[in-house]
Amino acid sequence: MKAVVLAAGMGTRMGSEIPKPLLKVAGREILYRSLKTLSELGVDEFVVVVGKKGEYIEDFLRRHGFKYRIVKNEHPERGNGYSFYLAKDYVDGKFVLIMGDHVYEREFMEKAVRGEGLIGDANPKYVDVDEATKVVCKNGKVEKIGKNLKKFDYIDTGFFVLTPDIFEHAEVLVKSKEEVSLSEIIGRAKVPVTEVSGYFWMDVDTPEELRKANRLIVRTSVKGRGDGLIARLINRKISLWLSERLVNRITPNQATIMSFLVGVLSALITFISVPLAGVTYQISSILDGIDGEIARASMRTSKFGGWLDSVLDRYVDFLFLLCLAIVSNLSLIGWIIACIAMFGSFMVSYTTERYKGAFFSDFYRDFEFRFPGKRDERIFLIMIFCVVGWIFQLFVLLAILTNLRVLATIYVVTKNRRGD
Amino acid sequence: MKAVVLAAGMGTRMGSEIPKPLLKVAGREILYRSLKTLSELGVDEFVVVVGKKGEYIEDFLRRHGFKYRIVKNEHPERGNGYSFYLAKDYVDGKFVLIMGDHVYEREFMEKAVRGEGLIGDANPKYVDVDEATKVVCKNGKVEKIGKNLKKFDYIDTGFFVLTPDIFEHAEVLVKSKEEVSLSEIIGRAKVPVTEVSGYFWMDVDTPEELRKANRLIVRTSVKGRGDGLIARLINRKISLWLSERLVNRITPNQATIMSFLVGVLSALITFISVPLAGVTYQISSILDGIDGEIARASMRTSKFGGWLDSVLDRYVDFLFLLCLAIVSNLSLIGWIIACIAMFGSFMVSYTTERYKGAFFSDFYRDFEFRFPGKRDERIFLIMIFCVVGWIFQLFVLLAILTNLRVLATIYVVTKNRRGD
Repeated sequence: MKAVVLAAGMGTRMGSEIPKPLLKVAGREILYRSLKTLSELGVDEFVVVVGKKGEYIEDFLRRHGFKYRIVKNEHPERGNGYSFYLAKDYVDGKFVLIMGDHVYEREFMEKAVRGEGLIGDANPKYVDVDEATKVVCKNGKVEKIGKNLKKFDYIDTGFFVLTPDIFEHAEVLVKSKEEVSLSEIIGRAKVPVTEVSGYFWMDVDTPEELRKANRLIVRTSVKGRGDGLIARLINRKISLWLSERLVNRITPNQATIMSFLVGVLSALITFISVPLAGVTYQISSILDGIDGEIARASMRTSKFGGWLDSVLDRYVDFLFLLCLAIVSNLSLIGWIIACIAMFGSFMVSYTTERYKGAFFSDFYRDFEFRFPGKRDERIFLIMIFCVVGWIFQLFVLLAILTNLRVLATIYVVTKNRRGD
Repeated sequence: MKAVVLAAGMGTRMGSEIPKPLLKVAGREILYRSLKTLSELGVDEFVVVVGKKGEYIEDFLRRHGFKYRIVKNEHPERGNGYSFYLAKDYVDGKFVLIMGDHVYEREFMEKAVRGEGLIGDANPKYVDVDEATKVVCKNGKVEKIGKNLKKFDYIDTGFFVLTPDIFEHAEVLVKSKEEVSLSEIIGRAKVPVTEVSGYFWMDVDTPEELRKANRLIVRTSVKGRGDGLIARLINRKISLWLSERLVNRITPNQATIMSFLVGVLSALITFISVPLAGVTYQISSILDGIDGEIARASMRTSKFGGWLDSVLDRYVDFLFLLCLAIVSNLSLIGWIIACIAMFGSFMVSYTTERYKGAFFSDFYRDFEFRFPGKRDERIFLIMIFCVVGWIFQLFVLLAILTNLRVLATIYVVTKNRRGD
């Protein structure tokens, strides 16, 4: 299937030097977000209608290896309906039409590409309704369409699944008047309407909207599964705030290394001040969320990133507890308990991650497992006890808590997967 | 596709109470081995011709949930050709024919089911050629077949892929004489010959052959990948010898628990005698190979078994090093080094097993990684140093060796998979 992308808009309100579809939202160009996802959903060629500075867009398409055809609109002032009309010789069969300056979340596109005609949202959450194009629907088809409709059924999402006969209507309009909007063509053709409601999508016209899209994409990037109590209540709130601000500046692997270095630093600080070390360790735990958030928001998740993050986490956890043990003048019993605490902390990760290697599915997806002792919870406890100065008690607590959690994990896996 | 299974033979040479196809080889009935594998290769119904005590076989087929049809041969003395003839009303289209007392390895069957006619082995490794049925081939078809041919091209493997027209030849022979062998029918029909050479298969006629099949199946069950030097040179040799003797008596999970308990015992023995503890630990390391060998030989591999074995190995390794540290009157430096050694030992497993969870492929299959420090190698080193009594030196060596190995692993993964 092909897709037509309207990218000739001049974006005057954005005050930018480069075409609007090339502005970065959450670490990726708006155009990259749509085209990459559509490619994964089966679109194999993009017909991109460009206006001024079209060479920027062509350069972008080439660099990212998309299969494309550039159509130059020499008269962008004739409206987006005219831009659309220019694509008419380059499509065959059913095709997708999207606006180059709209951001759509993946789940929206998955449903939309399977729809027909205009994709309408009955209850858009993230769009300024006053500014949006409204649609009145009758017998499943567009009856009226425009910005100033008082009563309406759907908001036009700027996403369409069309057939080439639409161009007959476009041609009539283009030949009869100077400026033609896409809405006029859609209204004249009375295309079907498919509802896809409740997902994140928005058009990006102003710097404020760009920031809003950036924030919303980062916020929806948390996978949630596997987050402990402290992560949900505290860490995520701060890390998301930071990710919003960092997503256009650093890569996920850089974020991984940053949190690793702060973790190592926290371990070394035990030699200066145990309470300060505890607080720094908790900060590294918060920072540890950023790599994953940035990776998902900027469509840069990688298997390697997940692997490296896990391995470095183990180093930080070990190093912190070891340094804490060193500065605490432990007795023989103290060292034994500290070792058991280190081992238990390790096994919390090992048992669940080895699960993925064995069963090729996620432990936290397969089971509702609420036993405390996850990394975010352990580190928060460690911080509290470090601040209070109860180090021996901390090791005892960790030794018991983590090993009980591991036993509970073994119990759950044995009970549910013994036959596999 | 259907399969005809000839299971009416009386197995007088075996001296057994139950039909020969139900004798266990490497923890599974001969019949189970063939039928289970054929099911996985696409055979969806088994036409099983039985003789005396056929109810044993029917009961077996029902218990294991195979889709089957029992054909009773009231005159087994009329030969296996007559048995085969009795199946004629129950097949349609191309079908497989196998002998119920033959053992075939999976790789053989994978090739054989894609063949045509008689499956011949030009160079059988595990069969008594004097006793075997030989085949002379001409223009890709059976020219002569029999036990007493001096010159021949192939040995008849007892595995055929036939079409129903074979039964016309069977009928002529069955109506003209009292005793008919399958070879006569095959020879008369001049079926095509497909060569599948070099794999493990054999017929099982005597208790000696049963033991030989048992041994060969266990021996070929080692996966190899991921075995360290000590495993290859020492541990496997002993564990295979033991697995041959245990495969019909214990389950893989029982073997896992057994090696775990010996491992825990070895840790506790440190409080009595460190050299003895080291030797016991090495014994547990040898026993640790048995569960996997038995599981693969008896077709009982399980994801859960792999997971549990890994988790219990971590417990044993930690417990042994902890007990060794406790009895060794370590200084502060000694404890620090012991902790680093424990952590490094843990990380050797973690980095490679987390790799499988991240990339869904096996680290040792993806990379030729020869850096020493695998579990079998570590435990062997530990035994040597325990016997000599160099405990502090042991911790220093382990701390360096394991952590270097982990760094090498990180390097290899980063270099090769950074883009994934």
